[in-house]
Amino acid sequence: MELIVGNIAFSTWSLRPWLVLKRCGADFTTTEVPLYGPDSARLLAQHSPTGKVPVLKVEGETIWDSMAISVWASEMFPDAALWPSDRHARWLARSVACEMHSSFMALRTECGMGPDAGGVIHTMVGPDRAPTPTSEAVAADVRRLVEIIRTMRGRFGAAGPYLFGEWSMPDAFLTPVATRFRHYQFDLSAFGDDGTAASYVAELLRQPDFLEWTELAATKQP
Amino acid sequence: MELIVGNIAFSTWSLRPWLVLKRCGADFTTTEVPLYGPDSARLLAQHSPTGKVPVLKVEGETIWDSMAISVWASEMFPDAALWPSDRHARWLARSVACEMHSSFMALRTECGMGPDAGGVIHTMVGPDRAPTPTSEAVAADVRRLVEIIRTMRGRFGAAGPYLFGEWSMPDAFLTPVATRFRHYQFDLSAFGDDGTAASYVAELLRQPDFLEWTELAATKQP
Repeated sequence: MELIVGNIAFSTWSLRPWLVLKRCGADFTTTEVPLYGPDSARLLAQHSPTGKVPVLKVEGETIWDSMAISVWASEMFPDAALWPSDRHARWLARSVACEMHSSFMALRTECGMGPDAGGVIHTMVGPDRAPTPTSEAVAADVRRLVEIIRTMRGRFGAAGPYLFGEWSMPDAFLTPVATRFRHYQFDLSAFGDDGTAASYVAELLRQPDFLEWTELAATKQP
Repeated sequence: MELIVGNIAFSTWSLRPWLVLKRCGADFTTTEVPLYGPDSARLLAQHSPTGKVPVLKVEGETIWDSMAISVWASEMFPDAALWPSDRHARWLARSVACEMHSSFMALRTECGMGPDAGGVIHTMVGPDRAPTPTSEAVAADVRRLVEIIRTMRGRFGAAGPYLFGEWSMPDAFLTPVATRFRHYQFDLSAFGDDGTAASYVAELLRQPDFLEWTELAATKQP
């Protein structure tokens, strides 16, 4: 089983299913395809029907899309409990993960990872930091994320440090957001946080699997 | 159980879970919240944590996001066979539905439904037609959709007229696309189609549940 990812330092879509597969204890290899090299378009087209990563190659099939790979994992590794066992928590966890999958375009665009128009490379893993964007569209995205975190942690947080207590799929989907908050130096208290979101973000950034991804990035050129 | 939707004539995100719930035989009511009225923002905020539709109200919970509602339905109505039973087909069906959920931004924007900047209302259901947009970004989206349809119909189409033979979740997610192709008068043969995609689009537009949605729209002001 092979997971094809973009640059480990900054491919946010790639990180999510990688975290999910790690959580499952899946036996897989990780192949990095640099997204901005001279040969990138050819390599991506060779690996992926969409020309995008991540894709998972398994049993002769190519599964594309970060969410489809993650749901595949929940089907194949039921013991990994990737979704909350409580049914109401599970319904809301899917809402959060799906909202993350389709929305927050301003945050993705204005707090991008990878090379920006000026040639600066923004990474999920590095110590370098960038100024906080100030557009109202980004602010609305951040306020919504803080609201999600406060609501779910307030309701389900007693069972553990993650969004629904125990680790579950939305934590994988929100980890790239946590790296954006760190890199772009957001003071979440200015976006409705009472400290709950900041603590949760810190928790995501010290997940052992995320730290392993960070170490993996250090072995590559961003 | 109550599904809150946007304008039935043009809320593409609303149509998908409505088709899915119909397919399940779910006992639900449909509440339309007009998206561009003077009171829209207040009504949307009252119904939905994201301020967007669709949302499903069930067992005291509000499930938001079209995909999360659809997956909720597949959990609650296993007999409805919303995903293909063949495991490889199912993995690919999820890839298609998830790609639809997160991508095709050019097509969504340039072939929009609802009021445009000039005040013309584009609808999924009406006989009125608009000129075909010609940007390369839209063309790339349409070529990709034709490729999806040809690939999946070529491999799984023997069992029925839908994307994976029998009706499944991706058909709900692609039905709004079919209405965009009709309204914006795309000649799919100019985008790599050999007739397969055009036939499939016609099939989606004559689904009995979609025709019921069309009739429902006729009872409302767009």
